[in-house]
Amino acid sequence: MSHVEHKATAPRSVRCYVITISDTRTEETDTAGRAIAELLRGAGHQVVGRTIVKDDPGFVRGAIERQLADPNVQAVITTGGTGISSRDSTYEAVSALLWKRLDGFGELFRMLSYEQIGSAAALSRACAGLVAGRVVVALPGSEAAVRLAMERLLIPELGHLVREASR
Amino acid sequence: MSHVEHKATAPRSVRCYVITISDTRTEETDTAGRAIAELLRGAGHQVVGRTIVKDDPGFVRGAIERQLADPNVQAVITTGGTGISSRDSTYEAVSALLWKRLDGFGELFRMLSYEQIGSAAALSRACAGLVAGRVVVALPGSEAAVRLAMERLLIPELGHLVREASR
Amino acid sequence: MSHVEHKATAPRSVRCYVITISDTRTEETDTAGRAIAELLRGAGHQVVGRTIVKDDPGFVRGAIERQLADPNVQAVITTGGTGISSRDSTYEAVSALLWKRLDGFGELFRMLSYEQIGSAAALSRACAGLVAGRVVVALPGSEAAVRLAMERLLIPELGHLVREASR
Amino acid sequence: MSHVEHKATAPRSVRCYVITISDTRTEETDTAGRAIAELLRGAGHQVVGRTIVKDDPGFVRGAIERQLADPNVQAVITTGGTGISSRDSTYEAVSALLWKRLDGFGELFRMLSYEQIGSAAALSRACAGLVAGRVVVALPGSEAAVRLAMERLLIPELGHLVREASR
Amino acid sequence: MSHVEHKATAPRSVRCYVITISDTRTEETDTAGRAIAELLRGAGHQVVGRTIVKDDPGFVRGAIERQLADPNVQAVITTGGTGISSRDSTYEAVSALLWKRLDGFGELFRMLSYEQIGSAAALSRACAGLVAGRVVVALPGSEAAVRLAMERLLIPELGHLVREASR
Amino acid sequence: MSHVEHKATAPRSVRCYVITISDTRTEETDTAGRAIAELLRGAGHQVVGRTIVKDDPGFVRGAIERQLADPNVQAVITTGGTGISSRDSTYEAVSALLWKRLDGFGELFRMLSYEQIGSAAALSRACAGLVAGRVVVALPGSEAAVRLAMERLLIPELGHLVREASR
Repeated sequence: MSHVEHKATAPRSVRCYVITISDTRTEETDTAGRAIAELLRGAGHQVVGRTIVKDDPGFVRGAIERQLADPNVQAVITTGGTGISSRDSTYEAVSALLWKRLDGFGELFRMLSYEQIGSAAALSRACAGLVAGRVVVALPGSEAAVRLAMERLLIPELGHLVREASR
Repeated sequence: MSHVEHKATAPRSVRCYVITISDTRTEETDTAGRAIAELLRGAGHQVVGRTIVKDDPGFVRGAIERQLADPNVQAVITTGGTGISSRDSTYEAVSALLWKRLDGFGELFRMLSYEQIGSAAALSRACAGLVAGRVVVALPGSEAAVRLAMERLLIPELGHLVREASR
Repeated sequence: MSHVEHKATAPRSVRCYVITISDTRTEETDTAGRAIAELLRGAGHQVVGRTIVKDDPGFVRGAIERQLADPNVQAVITTGGTGISSRDSTYEAVSALLWKRLDGFGELFRMLSYEQIGSAAALSRACAGLVAGRVVVALPGSEAAVRLAMERLLIPELGHLVREASR
Repeated sequence: MSHVEHKATAPRSVRCYVITISDTRTEETDTAGRAIAELLRGAGHQVVGRTIVKDDPGFVRGAIERQLADPNVQAVITTGGTGISSRDSTYEAVSALLWKRLDGFGELFRMLSYEQIGSAAALSRACAGLVAGRVVVALPGSEAAVRLAMERLLIPELGHLVREASR
Repeated sequence: MSHVEHKATAPRSVRCYVITISDTRTEETDTAGRAIAELLRGAGHQVVGRTIVKDDPGFVRGAIERQLADPNVQAVITTGGTGISSRDSTYEAVSALLWKRLDGFGELFRMLSYEQIGSAAALSRACAGLVAGRVVVALPGSEAAVRLAMERLLIPELGHLVREASR
Repeated sequence: MSHVEHKATAPRSVRCYVITISDTRTEETDTAGRAIAELLRGAGHQVVGRTIVKDDPGFVRGAIERQLADPNVQAVITTGGTGISSRDSTYEAVSALLWKRLDGFGELFRMLSYEQIGSAAALSRACAGLVAGRVVVALPGSEAAVRLAMERLLIPELGHLVREASR
């Protein structure tokens, strides 16, 4: 099947949970989390929940695991904690949980990001993959990075990803 | 040594085995496998064998292992099974066998693929590497993707890869 | 914090150690190692030491480990041994030591390298990451590749990397 | 808390699914699967389902994944496919799915097995761990091995394992 | 060299740091941490520091990394957090940091533990290995388990381990 | 099939290659390598070759890879380099090559070794597994350890291992 036919049969609406990973943001100042939610809804998807957790490995992994254990959630999208400071552990947490890695997501995000911010794109550890038929995507914390990843990569492919993941 | 000198001493003709991974294709309808074989021969390489196996982890890994155990085969090229459905296991099978990973092959394939098909390129899990001095390359199942990978990446580098792998 | 603010607080001068991995080069003929040292100094960083080791897994890993054990060294930069011949083990040595992988460095290097040398870029196994708060970067052996990686990726981000790594 | 107090609060009855991995067994001849079910029920646990799948990597992993996706199942216990022939892939399938490895289960099973069958115990690749709060245990295919593992290790600890896994 | 000669040249006194991983213990109630310190001192080793951290992946990994970054510390010994509840992450934290795994430590601890507490020994994820020439050992949280591991395995081998690790 | 029937159909004679890993031994002083060869021949197996390589990661891995590439060799047995000094890399080299791990071999060896030498057994990183249908076994360097592993574990199971590996 070509990638065009694939998309024709993808689900219209995906049930998503959004996790913001940050030590300082509140619901008011979490512009990245809000942008993800708005872009998902604008594309016809559902945001079944949203939360903010501290950038601490235990909280991050626990928050992702909880959503993966909920059969109602089809995709978990995180923002933040993808850098390289000692507290940033989203990449490690997601890598340890994945049953199928999707190297291309992080790669193409950094390729597109390089066009916008140059060499600093190399420091982002955005990544994605599948666990038990559900999609997990870890995005950086900046609103600009989130908009880039959502508009150019995730929104166009989310239905396709979820349909394939559940086959 | 520069990459230009490197190529000057690469072998002219590489002995390749082509494996098509598909539940539905027959020899007549396997246009991707046929394209790989024709492009290899057109570049002066030998296709020492070609087979079609079901997209099932056991068959895929077994078929690759059998060719790696044949001292006459210098490169194994697969098409299909690189997606993310629960049956697609080519990426996992190849990753588990590799002695040396070659991250750049999958990356550059997806970069070139992005220019053709956009964000859907992120879902391809093409990959490559070395096992016991032999080259293993896993390509997607569509003929267009196979032609892109062969013409832009693999045909220009195959001799070089095999020569380096055997040093 | 945006990537622009991030850089504003990065350290001006990073203490670096340069390791050339080669069976044939001497201090006179090691143009790649010399280029790294000059580019680092030109950007205001310190080169606290430089050495040449044989392209043998034991020597390579040992040489990197020794510098990581020196609290005075903030970044270890290697050149050579990133190919795929049986002796080339820099990728494996660095991968085994890393506490945090930085996939984006190798990816963007190969993307930039593709523009210069085409498909041969797929064969380079440049990589980077963090160990115990220190930065490790493995570059290819050719002077042209080293200049590309230093000028376009590492020099602009080195201060940023070291600051983040130590947080 | 000591291991004695731990057990005092463990759940009385665990909901288990039993998977027999074999190319030749039928419901009548599957004495190992039947023994697991009977020992579980005799200890007060529930067997919510039982199936026989071919010893093929795709079937094995798929069958385990399906049970892990069912929120009603607290423990998945397999028998068979833990040897080292090219088709035996239970160890690899389970290892790839685990979020937390439990090395001690396989170790102590082999230690106890050594007392019964001597050096052949070294060839068994029994293993266990946790995925998303659920317990996965892979036992060998022989009825004697299954009885040993169930009576000496799993039955005494199953409630404890499930309670800890879900905390 | 035999294991007897090996020990003859081992250092008399090793500089150790003890980390207790617990949500509830205080310095007064931390009997396991105190037992480790006393047994080390009784064997002629130095305890250069001791701390209690919450059983949270971020705190645990951070606390171990900080001691590994201190050139004065030759061995880091932890107690607690080796179970399988979702918060217990000592095994994962230590595994991710190790440069050389030492499977035998955890195995033999569980074998000896089985003699004392039976099947519950299978649930302990004690482990050990080397990072940058330093020894890391993760022990369970109970005082009895700690005494067993220290008296039967670690105290007799600590000098030997540190001497080998630094060669 | 029970473990007793399994053995009945095992090959009588296995073609083995013995590699001694040591910086100091010569053919005269290599008592461990000689013991392996004699014990193999005494059990009716063939020793198709024997070599001594330096305890350096590059030499060790290269020497093992060369034998695995020879279709005439059914089992590769090494002695030495299984300790934890920075040069000892046999465990890492073998682990990176294995297609199927056989955890039980190292475990049971250390269990038996503990009965002979006590806690020092924890420091041995003996290991085994399969690559491309061939058996790889890494034994410690001391003659006593080699005799223990050969007599109690490997000799009784070698035919069985090779038959299963090739199925």
